[in-house]
Amino acid sequence: MTPGAEGPSPRRRGRPSRTAGTGPDARTRILEAARTEFAERGYDKTSVRGIARAAGVDAALVHHYFGTKDEVFAAAIELSFEPALVLPQVLGGPADGLGERLARYFIGVWENPVSRAPLLAILRSALTHEAAAKVLRGFVLRRLLERIAAELDVPDPTFRAELAASHMIGIAMLRYVIRAEPLASTDPEKIIGMVAPTLQRYLSDG
Amino acid sequence: MTPGAEGPSPRRRGRPSRTAGTGPDARTRILEAARTEFAERGYDKTSVRGIARAAGVDAALVHHYFGTKDEVFAAAIELSFEPALVLPQVLGGPADGLGERLARYFIGVWENPVSRAPLLAILRSALTHEAAAKVLRGFVLRRLLERIAAELDVPDPTFRAELAASHMIGIAMLRYVIRAEPLASTDPEKIIGMVAPTLQRYLSDG
Repeated sequence: MTPGAEGPSPRRRGRPSRTAGTGPDARTRILEAARTEFAERGYDKTSVRGIARAAGVDAALVHHYFGTKDEVFAAAIELSFEPALVLPQVLGGPADGLGERLARYFIGVWENPVSRAPLLAILRSALTHEAAAKVLRGFVLRRLLERIAAELDVPDPTFRAELAASHMIGIAMLRYVIRAEPLASTDPEKIIGMVAPTLQRYLSDG
Repeated sequence: MTPGAEGPSPRRRGRPSRTAGTGPDARTRILEAARTEFAERGYDKTSVRGIARAAGVDAALVHHYFGTKDEVFAAAIELSFEPALVLPQVLGGPADGLGERLARYFIGVWENPVSRAPLLAILRSALTHEAAAKVLRGFVLRRLLERIAAELDVPDPTFRAELAASHMIGIAMLRYVIRAEPLASTDPEKIIGMVAPTLQRYLSDG
């Protein structure tokens, strides 16, 4: 997503600024600022105030759109996955290609540096701060996985969606964080080709 | 790895403790102290000196047995996996049960609180400190995965062993760190039953 194009705006404290604008552009700008702040500072050191400053809006506007810091965090992560845009395509295609579409979707999110940085920050934060783990558990995984699970015609759909997610998270850890070779330099298409049948099995049968 | 069988050896460097003794017992005690120190303090804040203190030996003895801090770290992680003891059984059984034996082995290591704590510490450290990531990449994964890969009769055996490892690491993240439900409270046998065919496919065929 591109930043809003409203130009520089003098900031006011207190009520939401008249100049920074509200509406979809300000909301997007806040989300992108949040993503950058969480990525650069980690969960713990990021504040609603800092996000507001980076977005050029008032903190009250951040609260207005998102509520608490945890909710901004969850929304900033969701921004990387764009579930509302992508999931219908991923989940809606032919059933026998679901594993491959899902593998391609996740690898694509991780291959993109813009979305990778905040995801790494989230994993780091979740491993070191229970508050961040709780957000990941409560908002992100539940929202994302239950949306996937709702489309599945298998027993224990959430458990199976979690198994699929665990594989993608583990690959992200080894490939992008630990950078274990040869996985770190393997062509994404080769990874997708190997992983797709696994996800397909988890999400569609036995 | 089993402790060396060299028996007690007269120490030369520094002044290793009068009381603690050397030999296999001291080596094991150092490793267990290292495991506890890394688990409790993380990679960054653990020192060879601190490990020596906890084990009741001189720092010189730690260096004598293991070399650098990174090498103690690697050995402490290996202690949890006991590869020399367990891998021959896991890798040596009937080929069609390899996936299940490997899944059971990894889940078993993670289900045991004694080995889980240091593994969590390692994941945390690897995510936040490049030095720890490097140890994990260089010593641990390479040693463990290449030992597994050496037994496989497939193309790209290390890549495939890494895919298998990535799945187990991802499950550990979701189950033990983020504690996402229902995965966090699912019977280990059920997880093993679902994951075994995945590992089997990675390690034995197309």
